[in-house]
Amino acid sequence: MTRKEVLVLEDLLGTNKQVAAGIRRELRSRGILGVNLLSSPGSGKTTLLETLADRLEGRYRMAVIEGDIETERDAERIRKKGVPAWQITTGGACHLEARMIGKVLGDIPAAIDFLFIENVGNLVCPASYDLGEDLRCVLLSSPEGDDKPAKYPQAFLSADCLILTKADLIPHLPFDPAKAAAEALSIKPGLSVFMVSALRGDGVDALVGYLVEALEGLRSGRA
Amino acid sequence: MTRKEVLVLEDLLGTNKQVAAGIRRELRSRGILGVNLLSSPGSGKTTLLETLADRLEGRYRMAVIEGDIETERDAERIRKKGVPAWQITTGGACHLEARMIGKVLGDIPAAIDFLFIENVGNLVCPASYDLGEDLRCVLLSSPEGDDKPAKYPQAFLSADCLILTKADLIPHLPFDPAKAAAEALSIKPGLSVFMVSALRGDGVDALVGYLVEALEGLRSGRA
Repeated sequence: MTRKEVLVLEDLLGTNKQVAAGIRRELRSRGILGVNLLSSPGSGKTTLLETLADRLEGRYRMAVIEGDIETERDAERIRKKGVPAWQITTGGACHLEARMIGKVLGDIPAAIDFLFIENVGNLVCPASYDLGEDLRCVLLSSPEGDDKPAKYPQAFLSADCLILTKADLIPHLPFDPAKAAAEALSIKPGLSVFMVSALRGDGVDALVGYLVEALEGLRSGRA
Repeated sequence: MTRKEVLVLEDLLGTNKQVAAGIRRELRSRGILGVNLLSSPGSGKTTLLETLADRLEGRYRMAVIEGDIETERDAERIRKKGVPAWQITTGGACHLEARMIGKVLGDIPAAIDFLFIENVGNLVCPASYDLGEDLRCVLLSSPEGDDKPAKYPQAFLSADCLILTKADLIPHLPFDPAKAAAEALSIKPGLSVFMVSALRGDGVDALVGYLVEALEGLRSGRA
């Protein structure tokens, strides 16, 4: 990059960080856990959110912000589950930024527990943008291959939690979940690792337990 | 984006376009078909190149430029097939740029037919960067879902050819290849569409036929 490009990028990330800090304060003061979901296109972010909507129903309230370059498709899928959802279309941009979340924040109902933000499908650029979340989860689906963490390190380094998705396809694939998890952990020791099949429901209870624990931690920290 | 960001981006793309035009002239003058492969992470670009190496062996000569954020893994896989390969690691950047290709171009053997460039796994950013190729192919793997073209339109709009990969997994997935192809064609009429299983070899002959035809077209245009 040229010096001019580097300066513009630094400006952009600095401003984003400030806006994100404001969003984090606002969410915490409302007792809402913000969760940023980050992955390649088609790793199963929306399907996981549909499954979480079923599992949390009647126990916890959730809302979803959907990020995509084009279309309302994902927000429509979430709304069919009876969950409030806002679609942000970036019109070409490869990631969500904190200011985009800020614009929607006033519309989010006060009485929710979880605000899930589904980022634009991209394992690279979204990793550099704090959205004011308290928890960042990176998804890696089994068909993508167990060699991805070292090839896209920033996404794994910046995450709190790794969710290996599409576990139901593993019998048909050359994918070793232990290898994928070990490689991710070598980049980010302490990463919480889950393996799920959102379609079949396997492993989702453990993930829900982790999310609920993080919510309780946030609220006890606030009290 | 701010005005300053837009100006930097315009500068960058303008410069990239000029460098790419030089590469295209150079490749055409040598009678080499440049092919830029673009897709999400884990859509099967490297596996497809391994299969093409087997199919082209003894009939055509190929070389490969591999783009990744980190690791030499993909170039090592290609070299095991006896094909010369150069790894470009972008160290964080989400796409290849023409100047990166320009740096490697002098090392490419004169007597090859195809130069395949495997871009960084990212269905967004690489679409905006001309690398001096004569053919751009976008890959979409069946596990990613048939709803992707409208969500990532620029990748499909900028491509000459769509390769639906991992066809062997379709029996286990909610994926309709006709729907994916129709949506891509609504964005880019005239797109050439192929469906392959690089692991099983299905559909690869048709793709090879297409590549050979493009090579012959380039050479007859030059003559």
